[in-house]
Amino acid sequence: MQQILTLNAFDPHGASDLRGTLRTLVEQRKQLMGASSVLFYDTPLEITAAHGALMYDAEGREYLDCYNNVPSVGHCHPYVTAAIARQMGQLNIHTRYLHQGMHEYGERLLKTFPDGLSNLTLTCTGSESNDFALRLAKHFTGNSGVIVCGAAYHGNTAAVTEVSPASSKTGVSAAWVRVVQAPDSYRIPPAMLGPRLAEEVEIAARDLKRHGFGVSAFLVDSIFSSDGVYAHPEGFLIDAVAATRRHGGLFIADEVQCGFGRTGSHLWGFQRHGVVPDIVTMGKPMGNGYPMGGVVTRPEILSSLCENVGYFNTFGGTPVAAAAGMAVLDVLKQEGLMDNAAGVGEYLRSGLRGLMARFPALGDVRGAGLYNAVEVVADPISKVPAPKLAKAIINDLRQRRVLIGAAGPQGNVLKLRPPLCFTREHVDVLLRAVTDTLEGLAA
Amino acid sequence: MQQILTLNAFDPHGASDLRGTLRTLVEQRKQLMGASSVLFYDTPLEITAAHGALMYDAEGREYLDCYNNVPSVGHCHPYVTAAIARQMGQLNIHTRYLHQGMHEYGERLLKTFPDGLSNLTLTCTGSESNDFALRLAKHFTGNSGVIVCGAAYHGNTAAVTEVSPASSKTGVSAAWVRVVQAPDSYRIPPAMLGPRLAEEVEIAARDLKRHGFGVSAFLVDSIFSSDGVYAHPEGFLIDAVAATRRHGGLFIADEVQCGFGRTGSHLWGFQRHGVVPDIVTMGKPMGNGYPMGGVVTRPEILSSLCENVGYFNTFGGTPVAAAAGMAVLDVLKQEGLMDNAAGVGEYLRSGLRGLMARFPALGDVRGAGLYNAVEVVADPISKVPAPKLAKAIINDLRQRRVLIGAAGPQGNVLKLRPPLCFTREHVDVLLRAVTDTLEGLAA
Repeated sequence: MQQILTLNAFDPHGASDLRGTLRTLVEQRKQLMGASSVLFYDTPLEITAAHGALMYDAEGREYLDCYNNVPSVGHCHPYVTAAIARQMGQLNIHTRYLHQGMHEYGERLLKTFPDGLSNLTLTCTGSESNDFALRLAKHFTGNSGVIVCGAAYHGNTAAVTEVSPASSKTGVSAAWVRVVQAPDSYRIPPAMLGPRLAEEVEIAARDLKRHGFGVSAFLVDSIFSSDGVYAHPEGFLIDAVAATRRHGGLFIADEVQCGFGRTGSHLWGFQRHGVVPDIVTMGKPMGNGYPMGGVVTRPEILSSLCENVGYFNTFGGTPVAAAAGMAVLDVLKQEGLMDNAAGVGEYLRSGLRGLMARFPALGDVRGAGLYNAVEVVADPISKVPAPKLAKAIINDLRQRRVLIGAAGPQGNVLKLRPPLCFTREHVDVLLRAVTDTLEGLAA
Repeated sequence: MQQILTLNAFDPHGASDLRGTLRTLVEQRKQLMGASSVLFYDTPLEITAAHGALMYDAEGREYLDCYNNVPSVGHCHPYVTAAIARQMGQLNIHTRYLHQGMHEYGERLLKTFPDGLSNLTLTCTGSESNDFALRLAKHFTGNSGVIVCGAAYHGNTAAVTEVSPASSKTGVSAAWVRVVQAPDSYRIPPAMLGPRLAEEVEIAARDLKRHGFGVSAFLVDSIFSSDGVYAHPEGFLIDAVAATRRHGGLFIADEVQCGFGRTGSHLWGFQRHGVVPDIVTMGKPMGNGYPMGGVVTRPEILSSLCENVGYFNTFGGTPVAAAAGMAVLDVLKQEGLMDNAAGVGEYLRSGLRGLMARFPALGDVRGAGLYNAVEVVADPISKVPAPKLAKAIINDLRQRRVLIGAAGPQGNVLKLRPPLCFTREHVDVLLRAVTDTLEGLAA
């Protein structure tokens, strides 16, 4: 298994090729963070400011951000930063005291979920959310096995790393983890995607039972981000979720990547597939960069854990987190960002598809709303992944001041998930740059 | 094992005794957060504002905060909130781009550590920091056993909960965990504390080896907060750390509770004991409430993990986190808060000791700087813990608008760790209230 996290990563051995301030910064950084330093691009980027969907480097050069989904309603959104600043000046304390702001936010957030998913636990990160969700599933089911996708990434804690094949450089999984192939809509016919995923889950579940672990959960990023972004056909999760439940397991929808309206048609990615999860986890865009995460589940699932173990999160659900979360929901509504994601996302995919005939390396364009991917291949017949070309495209676009990323087990998938305030004009800039890049690389 | 986290907790079964808005809020909260709702006090407190060491409820009543160590340089400190607000308006992005603010903060922070501890990994919470530290220790040593204190609390992830006996309601530890008794300076003679702790660690280490786990780490909160706060004699950790290392384990100093100057004499609690950890973890006060944490270690320990597993933290080390952390270090220095903690802490302990003769239930007064404890006992001869009396004191003080907490495996230890801007005048208010409370309870 290739390590997804190093996709589009700067290779520290190339540091001697850098010059000036950049070289100094990269060396400082290596000195400081050591082996935990991960930087993007062959030539790393120093960013000093950002607003909306634009970022600026130290020399004031402007970049179009087609990558970052944490500042989801736009970098440094003034409404959100003002709400956070206001509350920081008033009160910022943990939830062992009562505070109405947390109640108002919690109630508003829970209203967006299907009936039954009525308890909210606020955490600080998506990793903490998935870590907590795994514990809930284990306590509630009494089982320990977990089924995940082959190049899934669910976060960075000890437990969550074990269910994140993307983080492993050795390819070895924990005994209680079974890996199924992600629903590769580019290579598997649409009608077979759901049944095939269900069959893989069924086999994994039986194997977990045979080894005495049983099935606690089928854990899925609702848009399969690090697996390569798979969004269609809608509904392909239904049978796999049913198989999970037949074996006594819970279905956990990880909405850290695609939640909060990014997929355009619904606030939550799982809704596109017509399934109701037992547990939903949230993170990244929840506070537009203010660190917060959350877990929504049924009361009986939450109490099954809390009967045995105390759970408290110092930074989770503070008045400031509640204010940040509330401001994000306000902006999503006020600026119609979910609809914008739907419309601009469609325009983006349409534009990219228009380039496919001219550039056969663009094998597939897919996604939902503003979570999109372009699969780069050797040719559209063999569909053989072309990770080197994908890397060249990403780095060339960076030189053209357009920022995108990579995904997929081979790293050959271009990942496009800009802030939700992305416009058609931004799409036109992106399409122009992609065209220039592909022409340049072909020359 | 009693559950520490429920110490001073509101009992939901008492909700029907509440009236008016408070009852509504408590019921809303239960509806919303379900079993994960933890509230303080027999009569929970709705807090709406806080500044310095003072908190205010919905009716504008003022409370003296003698408990909260997260808003460590003072609730809603204007210098810190301004620094965060300024940076939030400029840029808030993850560390895969370069940003000088993170370098400046990291370099300044690392300068406060002993030579060799030269790599910093920024996380989002103390829990994430301890979770990461456990993984580092396991990868570097190749062992899996961990030694912790009997009522330790190190955080809320799956892995960290296993080394947090305080969180267990069942008293069952994981197979790879060994528990040693905390250095109870109230009941064990000073000269025996160090040797006894070392002997317990030695026995635990041998047992972990015998069971095939080996020793990866001895993990200690440098002031033993949830175990009951033990600070003296300085140096009692030296022999236990040596024993750990003889068995190939690392020493992890958890500074989440007592770091950033709280103990008065040093920035870090482990420095009081003249030991150099292999790994140091930070959290709570690091951003004065802005969610951030960190792990400091030697480069070879960090790289041992990163060779096998990728680590990246979305919210860790952002420009906003760096600005928050930097502002906290600025205020600590500008306002001389470490010296203040030393002086006011000494004044506080002296005042409390003055009450011991009159109120024999105050069995022991201990601590360092502004991390302090009063052990409440049946009588000073038997030293039998008196948790009910401690609970009555805490709740009576709350009615007198003085906020403290509980600690210790029995919950009979009063925990006093106010914001570091606490003054002698605040101490006088606290001492007056404690006197009134004890007189009232005796009547």
